[in-house]
Amino acid sequence: MTERVRDVNEDELLRRIFPLLPVGGSTQVGPGDDAAIVAAPDGRFLVSSDVLVEDRHFKTRWSSGADVGHRAAVQNFADIAAMGGRPTALVISLVMPGDTPVEWVEDLARGLAEACKPQRAGVVGGDLASGESIVVNVSVHGTLDWRDPVLRTGARPGDVVAYAGVRGRSAAGLALLDSGVIRPTHQHPLVKAYLRPDPPLEAGRRAARAGATAMLDVSDGLLRDAGRIALASDVRLDLDGAAFDDDRRVLSDAALVVAQSALRAGDAGELVGDIGQAEAANRLMNQWIWSGGEDHGLLAAFPEDVALPEGWTRIGQVHPPGKAAPRVTIDGRRPVVSAGWDHFEA
Amino acid sequence: MTERVRDVNEDELLRRIFPLLPVGGSTQVGPGDDAAIVAAPDGRFLVSSDVLVEDRHFKTRWSSGADVGHRAAVQNFADIAAMGGRPTALVISLVMPGDTPVEWVEDLARGLAEACKPQRAGVVGGDLASGESIVVNVSVHGTLDWRDPVLRTGARPGDVVAYAGVRGRSAAGLALLDSGVIRPTHQHPLVKAYLRPDPPLEAGRRAARAGATAMLDVSDGLLRDAGRIALASDVRLDLDGAAFDDDRRVLSDAALVVAQSALRAGDAGELVGDIGQAEAANRLMNQWIWSGGEDHGLLAAFPEDVALPEGWTRIGQVHPPGKAAPRVTIDGRRPVVSAGWDHFEA
Repeated sequence: MTERVRDVNEDELLRRIFPLLPVGGSTQVGPGDDAAIVAAPDGRFLVSSDVLVEDRHFKTRWSSGADVGHRAAVQNFADIAAMGGRPTALVISLVMPGDTPVEWVEDLARGLAEACKPQRAGVVGGDLASGESIVVNVSVHGTLDWRDPVLRTGARPGDVVAYAGVRGRSAAGLALLDSGVIRPTHQHPLVKAYLRPDPPLEAGRRAARAGATAMLDVSDGLLRDAGRIALASDVRLDLDGAAFDDDRRVLSDAALVVAQSALRAGDAGELVGDIGQAEAANRLMNQWIWSGGEDHGLLAAFPEDVALPEGWTRIGQVHPPGKAAPRVTIDGRRPVVSAGWDHFEA
Repeated sequence: MTERVRDVNEDELLRRIFPLLPVGGSTQVGPGDDAAIVAAPDGRFLVSSDVLVEDRHFKTRWSSGADVGHRAAVQNFADIAAMGGRPTALVISLVMPGDTPVEWVEDLARGLAEACKPQRAGVVGGDLASGESIVVNVSVHGTLDWRDPVLRTGARPGDVVAYAGVRGRSAAGLALLDSGVIRPTHQHPLVKAYLRPDPPLEAGRRAARAGATAMLDVSDGLLRDAGRIALASDVRLDLDGAAFDDDRRVLSDAALVVAQSALRAGDAGELVGDIGQAEAANRLMNQWIWSGGEDHGLLAAFPEDVALPEGWTRIGQVHPPGKAAPRVTIDGRRPVVSAGWDHFEA
């Protein structure tokens, strides 16, 4: 019989989870007291928070507990990397129905631990509560190791726009699962990219050391997040339409499969309409590349004379803001794909 | 027409909330970037997290957004105070249905701000997501200002057990609302104690300075939380049955009203049974005092020769652990009331 969280009391559940959680190199007092104590050697710390909601950000029939734990950790690490920092400690809050299998929770802890290990980050605390559906909140902490932070506000006209990480993979993996043509598996690279994103964390630190003027984690889609840098820095970003041709090659088969499946099901909506399969696949690919969320790549601006560090590719240029011009253009023109993910859109 | 969160996009919602949020004295980079930066002058920081779930921890028909914001903040502050620390920064994650009124969210921000102000704590970041019901997660950060932390592990036989704050008020306020005899109002002191708990934050710092050997925030009931100190320190706590006579005087009328209402409704269960009104009220009061949660008072152990600082009252003594003895006794005997709140109990 599957053991459920309502079958064990809270203290017992914590006793089961604690040994699975990673102990970080910066942890001075770990879980089990009213608060944890974490080292902040340069006299300040980075903090950010991301919440994952069942059936919004993940489905338990696709993602294992370990997948959710991994994703929750690394998407938070990406926020720290986007400041130029190094993650040190996570605090986890977990809301779940009483019938959640204890095994699922233990699996979540293992996923967190696996993601934390290479970063030497620890889980230092958290909270448990019951609720209608699973909600996983991660607060991540990091250190800048005496470096200056890289904010969103520093991009200047003339800067080079660069990207680190993959584009569209997570969106493509999600679309494959959604279309029902493939079952959740870590064997398929796109599905794995969705279940277990792998943000270029070290590239964030390299960008900071190289003198990046602005940087952010692309979680809601490249166009939307580029718009955020543009707005914060009061500039315009012009992106190269050909920038992600390597990613296109990786995505093209999946785009065709998903387009075919959508055409068959007749549920493709405005995306497909009267256009052929090839054009439908092409539009899907554009959507994934420019608006797909959750790859957690990094977008940054660098001074023109800086040699881009390892892992970074030039994808555009920073311009002065235009009077009527959109904040983000592709090859000088207003993008025709939607900007990206909005959490409350109907 | 009421404006709902699904009617505004996420960026717009953030633009509405940000100006309402408190800026703290320790905030170096506030909300709006991938991560915030908070000062940690003594080279480390305290961190803790608490999650509030709609219909588990609060009901929107009783608690306003400001009540929920206030509660979420101060119960986290109590965790910092229980280490001997001072809160510096909060990070808030908010999950809510699309039909949540924007006004409710703004009100939540105002409640957070009001609670933060006297502490000079700031809200430095957070996340928003949609979900079935409202979930508010607060991660709190604090500083020890170069002091040693007060953990749960340091109580020694011979120490005095002391308590700061009120007992049973929140549980009584909740019972009054639950019984339907009173409507939610800040005018009634017990209902207010439930809607807006007021933990003795300064008393926590005073205890640390006075040399408390162990301390925790009592959030799940005095007996349960006393058991946690006893277990962590490997001691036994014997509490004085008469310790909270002042609180009893404050609670007695409410206990009578709730007992009467339960007897009338015939839903009093084992609590009342064949006993009279006075005895039913007395048992209710014991329940509130010993097992009521959410007053967020502080429980600590002090060396015998220490003069208890302002706000602290002696309520018992620390003894060596007994072979078959329970971890916590009242006047030397095993308590007959239930220990307190368990988050997953059916």
